[in-house]
Amino acid sequence: MQAQGRLLTGDRPTGKLHLGHYVGSLANRVRLQDDYTCYFLVADYHVLTTAYENPAGIGENVRELVLDYLSVGIDPERSTIYLQSLTPAVSELALILGMLISVPRLQRVPTLKEVVRDLQLDTASYGLLGYPVLQAADIMMVRAHIVPVGRDQASHLEVTRELARRFNELYGQVFPIPETLIGEVPTLVGLDGRAKMSKSLGNAITLSEEPEDLRRKVMGMYTDPTRLRATDPGHVEGNPVFQYHDAFNTDTAEVEELKERYRGGRVGDVEVKRRLIDALERFLAPIRERRAAVAARAGLVEEIIADGSRTARREAAETLRLAREAMGLTYFAERQ
Amino acid sequence: MQAQGRLLTGDRPTGKLHLGHYVGSLANRVRLQDDYTCYFLVADYHVLTTAYENPAGIGENVRELVLDYLSVGIDPERSTIYLQSLTPAVSELALILGMLISVPRLQRVPTLKEVVRDLQLDTASYGLLGYPVLQAADIMMVRAHIVPVGRDQASHLEVTRELARRFNELYGQVFPIPETLIGEVPTLVGLDGRAKMSKSLGNAITLSEEPEDLRRKVMGMYTDPTRLRATDPGHVEGNPVFQYHDAFNTDTAEVEELKERYRGGRVGDVEVKRRLIDALERFLAPIRERRAAVAARAGLVEEIIADGSRTARREAAETLRLAREAMGLTYFAERQ
Repeated sequence: MQAQGRLLTGDRPTGKLHLGHYVGSLANRVRLQDDYTCYFLVADYHVLTTAYENPAGIGENVRELVLDYLSVGIDPERSTIYLQSLTPAVSELALILGMLISVPRLQRVPTLKEVVRDLQLDTASYGLLGYPVLQAADIMMVRAHIVPVGRDQASHLEVTRELARRFNELYGQVFPIPETLIGEVPTLVGLDGRAKMSKSLGNAITLSEEPEDLRRKVMGMYTDPTRLRATDPGHVEGNPVFQYHDAFNTDTAEVEELKERYRGGRVGDVEVKRRLIDALERFLAPIRERRAAVAARAGLVEEIIADGSRTARREAAETLRLAREAMGLTYFAERQ
Repeated sequence: MQAQGRLLTGDRPTGKLHLGHYVGSLANRVRLQDDYTCYFLVADYHVLTTAYENPAGIGENVRELVLDYLSVGIDPERSTIYLQSLTPAVSELALILGMLISVPRLQRVPTLKEVVRDLQLDTASYGLLGYPVLQAADIMMVRAHIVPVGRDQASHLEVTRELARRFNELYGQVFPIPETLIGEVPTLVGLDGRAKMSKSLGNAITLSEEPEDLRRKVMGMYTDPTRLRATDPGHVEGNPVFQYHDAFNTDTAEVEELKERYRGGRVGDVEVKRRLIDALERFLAPIRERRAAVAARAGLVEEIIADGSRTARREAAETLRLAREAMGLTYFAERQ
């Protein structure tokens, strides 16, 4: 175990990850592997909170998600990649934690209202209301110290912190109170200029995007709507094409030169976009290659998930043992 | 497996069982063993829904409950007695079922309001709101066809039936829709004449009551308040002492004779109560003896629980396999 403790984060397997995920969290996760014992959770049971009517695609999405992880540099030799439904003890901890939080407290979690509205649900299911409890169980299951979250998830982590404190107060010190860690560049603007890159908005470039799709998507990007001709002075600030240059073009001299010329009306959108395509291609090519190399080895993804989940189950069993002991539920210790 | 299918029922381990439990359910359960494959659940995780602040006594109550079961004739050779927390897969099924029911539906379950009021809670915990979902998971875990319930639990079973129907509609036929079975004599009046014998009201005779306590309790029973002298005509109807005679005195000629004399003012309360003590002693002595015999064999209760829970876990694994298969959650089949 590294010096600074355990870190847990993860994703719901709902489709391929994109550049927004990279900027918002994956890049950070890859670095965090140097400092923490990392657990990366593939939260398939969480998908059911909203997609219970059609769970058929989850398996394929699990595989794609793990390929994405490996392709950007998450290292299964150093970190634990595991599947929620292969660690069913998390549901047992969630059951216990559910006794320690009130219904109105969960109803006040801001993301709940957003999801109910976004999915046009009449009302929340019991499982959806309990989403933050299950998430707390995920985090507490590995007794995590650190949880890197997006800003939109900060209210969920607050529930985890409350539950960990409440448990410790009632039964004795078992769980660390996890700290949040919010990345520097939390969101990437969409191709269409909308606030956030998102698969469901159709404004995303995936990490496994093919070169021709990449080209087509970048050429169709939203730029400066006030600029009609290449000779008009253009706006760099708030322009998605330049935001992507800043985030992914490692040739900073080129980026500065392009900005200068753009402001002066001395470069067209087409050239700026072509240069972005080249920069993104330099960024994505090695990711795409690693992805292909892993995908080509039959059974490798499955093996990584099986190994990681075995590690997670071992942690889960130990956590439940500690929790049940603290609660005095030590009768009939035989738990096979 | 017997011809008529699987039956599940059980109790929360909160203390010794009493004559009210015998009349309301245990007598029936003993008979039902002839017709059904019976599962008797010791629902220790359910206790946490209301007693999460002080779970220390649960272990001892588990033991007492199983001793009560065995003493009245529940036969571990024919039926499965098992512990909820030794079958943790039930929490995984509860997690899945929680997606299929809305929060308002659970808030309408009448027992929820009663418990919140009786325990003087400010508000329900998430776990308490989900009590009927966990109960549904218990029932569906063994794919039960029949659930003998008290009238006060009928609204819970309705939730189970809805969840089983909903699951089958969404994913395909996995769960039987369980039928209720309500006993003939659902409640026994308390020693104090209140509507129901209940440990918490302090008006109960336990199945393991010692002879001197039995005598004291019966002599202190509420009878006909309008009768001042043994020569006054007395009321038999609504008189707890005669209700107990009807329920436990197998000498029906004696009971008829006593009623006759009571109505005519020709017998005192003391004699009627003495005869009841004798009748209850005839009823309780063999129960007390069987209890002592089992309790004397070190490790027997633990062994019965371990064996039954092993059987229940086998059923649970098979049920989860069927449920996950129906849902299409068959990726990464390795579930150890």
